[in-house]
Amino acid sequence: MEAIKSFELSKEYLELLRESIEEAHIPFIQESMQDAKKADIASLLDELDMEEALFVLRALDPDFSADILIELDEDSQYKVITAMPAEELATLIDHMDSDDAVDVLNQLVVNDREAVISHLEQKEKSLYIIELLRYDEDSAGGLMAKEIIKANLNWTVVQTIEEIRRQAENVEKIFSIYVVDNKEKLLGRVALKKLILAGSDTKVADLYEDNIISVPTYMEGEEVAEIMRKYDLEAVPVVNVKNKLVGRITVDDILDLIREQAEEDIQAMTGFSDDVEESDSVYRLSRARLPWLFIGMVGGLMGAGFIGFFEEGLSAVTALAFFIPLITATGGNVGIQSSTLVVQSLANKSVFEDSLTKRFFKVLLVAVFNGLVLAGFVLLTVVFLYGQETKFGLVVAIALFSVVLLASFMGTLTPIVLDKMGINPAMASGPFITTANDLLGLGVYFAVATLLLNL
Amino acid sequence: MEAIKSFELSKEYLELLRESIEEAHIPFIQESMQDAKKADIASLLDELDMEEALFVLRALDPDFSADILIELDEDSQYKVITAMPAEELATLIDHMDSDDAVDVLNQLVVNDREAVISHLEQKEKSLYIIELLRYDEDSAGGLMAKEIIKANLNWTVVQTIEEIRRQAENVEKIFSIYVVDNKEKLLGRVALKKLILAGSDTKVADLYEDNIISVPTYMEGEEVAEIMRKYDLEAVPVVNVKNKLVGRITVDDILDLIREQAEEDIQAMTGFSDDVEESDSVYRLSRARLPWLFIGMVGGLMGAGFIGFFEEGLSAVTALAFFIPLITATGGNVGIQSSTLVVQSLANKSVFEDSLTKRFFKVLLVAVFNGLVLAGFVLLTVVFLYGQETKFGLVVAIALFSVVLLASFMGTLTPIVLDKMGINPAMASGPFITTANDLLGLGVYFAVATLLLNL
Repeated sequence: MEAIKSFELSKEYLELLRESIEEAHIPFIQESMQDAKKADIASLLDELDMEEALFVLRALDPDFSADILIELDEDSQYKVITAMPAEELATLIDHMDSDDAVDVLNQLVVNDREAVISHLEQKEKSLYIIELLRYDEDSAGGLMAKEIIKANLNWTVVQTIEEIRRQAENVEKIFSIYVVDNKEKLLGRVALKKLILAGSDTKVADLYEDNIISVPTYMEGEEVAEIMRKYDLEAVPVVNVKNKLVGRITVDDILDLIREQAEEDIQAMTGFSDDVEESDSVYRLSRARLPWLFIGMVGGLMGAGFIGFFEEGLSAVTALAFFIPLITATGGNVGIQSSTLVVQSLANKSVFEDSLTKRFFKVLLVAVFNGLVLAGFVLLTVVFLYGQETKFGLVVAIALFSVVLLASFMGTLTPIVLDKMGINPAMASGPFITTANDLLGLGVYFAVATLLLNL
Repeated sequence: MEAIKSFELSKEYLELLRESIEEAHIPFIQESMQDAKKADIASLLDELDMEEALFVLRALDPDFSADILIELDEDSQYKVITAMPAEELATLIDHMDSDDAVDVLNQLVVNDREAVISHLEQKEKSLYIIELLRYDEDSAGGLMAKEIIKANLNWTVVQTIEEIRRQAENVEKIFSIYVVDNKEKLLGRVALKKLILAGSDTKVADLYEDNIISVPTYMEGEEVAEIMRKYDLEAVPVVNVKNKLVGRITVDDILDLIREQAEEDIQAMTGFSDDVEESDSVYRLSRARLPWLFIGMVGGLMGAGFIGFFEEGLSAVTALAFFIPLITATGGNVGIQSSTLVVQSLANKSVFEDSLTKRFFKVLLVAVFNGLVLAGFVLLTVVFLYGQETKFGLVVAIALFSVVLLASFMGTLTPIVLDKMGINPAMASGPFITTANDLLGLGVYFAVATLLLNL
């Protein structure tokens, strides 16, 4: 234990930490961690088993442990909080902001949750928590913290600074003071900078900015994120239906949300049935991947059955089989490109959007152009490079062109329909649609062949 | 012009605005827009043509126009700034933060850029800009703004507040005051909240927090974003190699960066050669899609040539053709799943990562498990449902199992290799790899068939 004296995010320190946990060497843990960042300690605890992590959390100051607990990854956090007695967890929750407290409590079953709440020492905090638990986790209400600094319109700067002093411990990050009337209705905000530069007797009424953006409790988190990004907000006040100020959302929560959603979208696109990471167990990884692989496989088997109908034709013109992968792959690629484009424009909806008719007309133009280029190239290759008959080349080219057209429409329409049904449109690029496109491609290919080659 | 008096993000207002531009009715533009958000006006101007947008920007106060210009989308911004005389653009740039100024100037060719800089009125701003132009656009240096509030370690609170007053106009959002020594080296920060609550004579030395996070100028933007997310920072100071404070990055710039990168990743995954939106022109959309479709098609044609080698075998056992789509689709799906997982874990690198050997062993386990389940199911279906011989069923099942294994490794290895080569690993899920997987699948399938069926 000589070399490393203070916290490091390294394998060596992790080893040392394990040793000191085993030897119950609490001073080393406390001293080495005192200047460390909570997020770094959390990354380290994620590597420990539950008993070890619990030992570290108990060795540290509850205020610090509470911060670390919030930063743990979901699995570690769940293990630790379910292993803690209700009273101990309540002590930590007493040191959290209400939004973080609710995130933690939401992982417990209702009975355990109530047991913890009943042990909370701060009356105000437990009221906050009970209120926040009512909201949907992904709504503005579920994201907001109750801890804010409010100033009445009639206060002076001195009174407002007094309020900041009173709340300084509860509200860690203060960006602005929200201004309300006597009925707690949100009127505007005063930036901290303005407060510092104003004279002590200045009235809040003369300082505040009234034309500010707020969000209602029921707004979806994703929309809140987009508003904060668009208007460059570091925090946004949340109001209820009566425009009463009820909380605020800060940008750090939004950053986490954006990252989670980007990952979920990509996983939805690539066919995971569950949110997984490379570090998850083999069983969990396999289970998350199998359902979509299965759908893809059933599609493949249906395709086999379908091609089976054309067995005679295939025996007569074996070359038909050669171009099956070309047809299905092109259909898949075109479909994914189309759906990606629509998914992205669904995520950034604008009031000035083109009508559906206009959008489909554009899809048609792009598809016809790309289809003609590809089909032309294929026709030349099949006839001149592969020495097939022109008629056969035409079959492949016409099928390819039709597949490009159909896959463009499928790829465009599916996310729009899914979105209207309230399903994440990113799934439209997943194996389900790829599989449907494969079958569609095969259908078109053999239909064209049957017609043109009189099979 | 009766109905709508003030700004609205609506088609009706857009019509009204067009009319007033045509009639050069400047008061309407000024009055209706005075309470509007800059981002909303920018969304509206994005719908206008260049001449109209320019008219609106000229009608408004330069300070406001500068803010709107920054928020325009890339295409509109480019059109407007290239149409403006250098002197006029310089007036707007004089009203921008240095980071935004550089983003705008980076779009101009060197000569135009220098012409604009030579017209800047603020000496300090032009020095800032010239310094920032040296940095790579995607590095911390390229993202940072030079406008910050610095306090010397030996100052008092009163002196610091005086500095805030002096800089209040230049620094719009103040979250903390950065503390430096006499050589401008970064020592720490004082949160604005602390400054408000401290007595006027308190020394900065007694107030500041020394254990803070800073980033070097050369750090990549993506990494800066991850640090700000992980440590919940609303702003981060940027230092040069000598630890001298040179600027700061605020979270609003990071939000834009994260969004752009998520979109680029998804487009790389789905095979666009260029960053496009649904609203782009038919020509641009087609051009961005064609290159990858072409690669996919060339792959398909190579696949056709490859299957052609087995023409005799295919004539003998036509049923072989039935299962081609099953093999290629499964390979594609497995490959995309694997690469997605690796791409996500590459984006969240950790010091406690498993070794490559351990990761590949895990990939192997998952692949064997999934492969066995899928192959078993296929064997039963092919033999009992489709009434093929057991030996033939085994060919399909063994090929499928091998494809799952190979595609898992390809999908895992490719992003790792691309990442090591400095190429965006998200491309590993693109059509290029899907195509390679298709060919691989066909190879395995026909190899197994040749061996087992003695073709």
